[in-house]
Amino acid sequence: MKELINLIDKTLDEYMRVEYPETIFNAMKYTLMLPGKRLRPVMCLETVRMLGEDIKKALPSACAIEMLHVQSLIHDDLPCMDNDDFRRGKPSNHKIFGEANAVLAGDALLTYAPQTIIEKSKDLTSEQIVRIIHEFTKFGGAYGLIAGQVVDIESEGGKLDKSKEETLDFIHLNKTAVLFRLALKMGAIISKADKKTEKELDNFGKKFGLAFQIYDDIMDEISTFEEMGKTIGKDKEAEKLTYVSLYGLEEAKKRFRVLINECYDIIEKYHSKIFEEILGKLKERVGE
Amino acid sequence: MKELINLIDKTLDEYMRVEYPETIFNAMKYTLMLPGKRLRPVMCLETVRMLGEDIKKALPSACAIEMLHVQSLIHDDLPCMDNDDFRRGKPSNHKIFGEANAVLAGDALLTYAPQTIIEKSKDLTSEQIVRIIHEFTKFGGAYGLIAGQVVDIESEGGKLDKSKEETLDFIHLNKTAVLFRLALKMGAIISKADKKTEKELDNFGKKFGLAFQIYDDIMDEISTFEEMGKTIGKDKEAEKLTYVSLYGLEEAKKRFRVLINECYDIIEKYHSKIFEEILGKLKERVGE
Repeated sequence: MKELINLIDKTLDEYMRVEYPETIFNAMKYTLMLPGKRLRPVMCLETVRMLGEDIKKALPSACAIEMLHVQSLIHDDLPCMDNDDFRRGKPSNHKIFGEANAVLAGDALLTYAPQTIIEKSKDLTSEQIVRIIHEFTKFGGAYGLIAGQVVDIESEGGKLDKSKEETLDFIHLNKTAVLFRLALKMGAIISKADKKTEKELDNFGKKFGLAFQIYDDIMDEISTFEEMGKTIGKDKEAEKLTYVSLYGLEEAKKRFRVLINECYDIIEKYHSKIFEEILGKLKERVGE
Repeated sequence: MKELINLIDKTLDEYMRVEYPETIFNAMKYTLMLPGKRLRPVMCLETVRMLGEDIKKALPSACAIEMLHVQSLIHDDLPCMDNDDFRRGKPSNHKIFGEANAVLAGDALLTYAPQTIIEKSKDLTSEQIVRIIHEFTKFGGAYGLIAGQVVDIESEGGKLDKSKEETLDFIHLNKTAVLFRLALKMGAIISKADKKTEKELDNFGKKFGLAFQIYDDIMDEISTFEEMGKTIGKDKEAEKLTYVSLYGLEEAKKRFRVLINECYDIIEKYHSKIFEEILGKLKERVGE
């Protein structure tokens, strides 16, 4: 796990050369290089490894998904969105570079991600690159990540088009699960997995994404700033729709455990130490 | 010209289906569908036509470049950027949908543009699609459009790393010219033009882009809100670095005319009524 994280950090650093005008590259690099768990790129690389391909082939795509993730965090932290001053334990992007540059740094990451896939994926066919970028745009755009963000914002304002339960599932399937699904999908495309495997892994991505969001909601209730590196208790304060606020802490934990066990069941046959370690760590932190 | 504009409007409308959550699709569509000259997509289609290809092949790319352009306008108008309340004669995106949705609508257009190229370009090879998206990311990102925006913002704050003349050229080559260059580059790739033609057209794009920006600076000095559909005289008020402020109105007009004549020289042999019409109209409005 640590080896993969180091490889991703090193590769991201290599990809992000600082050129003129330095402000934009420094702003992009600042949030991107903050130490993180690199969960999404790790899962992309591990998918490729367990399907028998060389992980080097997946490095550009793995880094691209981290860029997409970081882009969404930078824009999410803006004063007009979640207005969060901290991210990964450090001041948010706009606190350092100003709002205008934070908006532009997000935009730049959103274009540099597919650019990286195209420029660095020497061992992939054009067909594979087109498929990977297609999934990137579907999961990262208005039919995925951004749909989740919008419904999240609207639900905070009390606007609900569907029931609370449906709305919450929609937000989390889109805002959170899509990036895990994308990580596994990219891995499957790079490894030329058959359709059945691709679908199975996609199902894992969905379940893991929901579990991860419930985990996040639980942590917002029981964790500390030091542990999470971001402002804690904001959801509660904002009376935000979360698994904990809707179902209560115990029921949220129960749902989390059911999903994590379903994830184990899907991934078991691949004998992946990395995936088992990730599932185990989340389970441990949520506790009994 | 009008036929091409109608074709682009119709196709954009077709591509932009409004789905759940409607807010984001409505926000994307709002600024995208405001009546405009569609100069960049028109130039992309016309490049393909004059190089002997079917313009239908270029419709997805032409629409994608308009999405990229509109994305940059939406983010540019935000309070933390240019803080402009009007665009194309109507309230800016954030005045209608709020800042958070305007940020997200820009992000969504930036991902939907390459998604459109991939999903709608049935007649292009994967190699062509990869090349088109690669140019899109290079011209639209931190090595193009966004670099121009950043230096523009910094120069407004009085921060200059280079001379005023160099800085102004950098801003305009990146902020303005890249989108015209991209339009012609996409057209060349779709038409499978040889390298020499591609380079020649790229040179046209650069010169036209600079001429267009000088035109815009001149109009900010001598035009009205009704004519331009956006706030006029802002540059002067902000003591912004423009061709007019740096070289004076007469010298700016002179430079504009030199560039436009160079554009005529490059494009002449293609006998393109559309390009000649575009050049003629700009020339006419700037006057003697």
